[in-house]
Amino acid sequence: MNLLLLGPEDFRSAQLARIDGRRYRHLVEVLRAEPGRALRVGLLGGLLGEARVVAQTSEYIDLAVQLSETPPPPASITLLLALPRPKALRRIVQGITACGIKRLVLFNTARVDKSYWQSPLLEPAALHQQLLLGLEQARDTLLPEVLLRPRFRPFVEDDLPGLSANCLRIVAHPDSALPCPCNIAAPVTLAIGPEGGFIPFEIELLESQDFQAVHLGPRALRVETVVPALLGRLLKL
Amino acid sequence: MNLLLLGPEDFRSAQLARIDGRRYRHLVEVLRAEPGRALRVGLLGGLLGEARVVAQTSEYIDLAVQLSETPPPPASITLLLALPRPKALRRIVQGITACGIKRLVLFNTARVDKSYWQSPLLEPAALHQQLLLGLEQARDTLLPEVLLRPRFRPFVEDDLPGLSANCLRIVAHPDSALPCPCNIAAPVTLAIGPEGGFIPFEIELLESQDFQAVHLGPRALRVETVVPALLGRLLKL
Repeated sequence: MNLLLLGPEDFRSAQLARIDGRRYRHLVEVLRAEPGRALRVGLLGGLLGEARVVAQTSEYIDLAVQLSETPPPPASITLLLALPRPKALRRIVQGITACGIKRLVLFNTARVDKSYWQSPLLEPAALHQQLLLGLEQARDTLLPEVLLRPRFRPFVEDDLPGLSANCLRIVAHPDSALPCPCNIAAPVTLAIGPEGGFIPFEIELLESQDFQAVHLGPRALRVETVVPALLGRLLKL
Repeated sequence: MNLLLLGPEDFRSAQLARIDGRRYRHLVEVLRAEPGRALRVGLLGGLLGEARVVAQTSEYIDLAVQLSETPPPPASITLLLALPRPKALRRIVQGITACGIKRLVLFNTARVDKSYWQSPLLEPAALHQQLLLGLEQARDTLLPEVLLRPRFRPFVEDDLPGLSANCLRIVAHPDSALPCPCNIAAPVTLAIGPEGGFIPFEIELLESQDFQAVHLGPRALRVETVVPALLGRLLKL
């Protein structure tokens, strides 16, 4: 936890927040918080700043909070990701959030195992928890929007034009002859398929929506590797 | 397993290999191998090709092997990585191998927990197993070399000049004002610190060896995310 995220409900007055539960235990047991100690904090959806421990009991900590800095700028990338296997989903969602992605669409394809859509990790509260962990990691306060699209064709035909308006549209596809570009200043909508790849019909449908297929070299990579590799490549620094 | 890796000891004649043990069970239980079935194979350190199941018992499978293709070209990046926590090491070593890195140096810094050096994952047989899994993932046959350097200063002063000769030398450091470059055709030696970052003395020592500090944006990322992000960015496609 590189950042303690606060919500409006934590505040007892304009600059005094009270923390209990999971965050209290983390503060005491891992970060060794004690009266006088300063912590980096952020208001969910708002500013970053510093807090000082002003009181501590066996159940809660009171913090004097000063919020002053804006969170880091979002990555201007919308990520469309074929739903990964549940074992990988948690880490991937955290990593994507930490990278500054503010819109993530998890969608279905022919090679996504149907059982993946039953994962309890897709429930809103479980996803929210992973998003918070990603924000805490990256010292950010702005929650990404996560959309679930369990039907490929309506997603591409009906949602994608709006989701990718005014964006460079690219789809990662190992068979493409075009290398993935890098350091892109324009907004990007990036589509990444399942580990078995898109089927030809899916690539054709994406191409009909002006998505350009690009490759990241000749190697078959796990989705945990390919997602940060493509984001790191596309990111405008 | 996207590739079945064979060793010279698997061959009973020039083109006939016999597979038992872990790989036999994977072939039968996961890949549903049966007589007549074709598989992608590679000879460790050698060529890629195809094999056909010509006999199957309850203990082994015999394969008729045709090797003809060269493995994918190596990434021309030497990766110097502060030893990660053991929980992350396994996935990171697999991912680095899959990305085509052929020389990985795991080194110590002030913010690497000393206990990490006791991890059983650092034993040669355990590391070798992770390297094989990375090669199988990426359909490659060329094992990376892995060097362990538990003392920072002798590593930087004595080993680094040779390891980074004729390379672009860069070190990932969030405080740098210089963005990480991308799509680099020249050989690169890339140094990545621990999650807490390098201490100033360490950055100065690396800079004294002509390493240039670069950043990947304002966000604090986990090592599992930052390693593929930097590799994906630097890779020449």
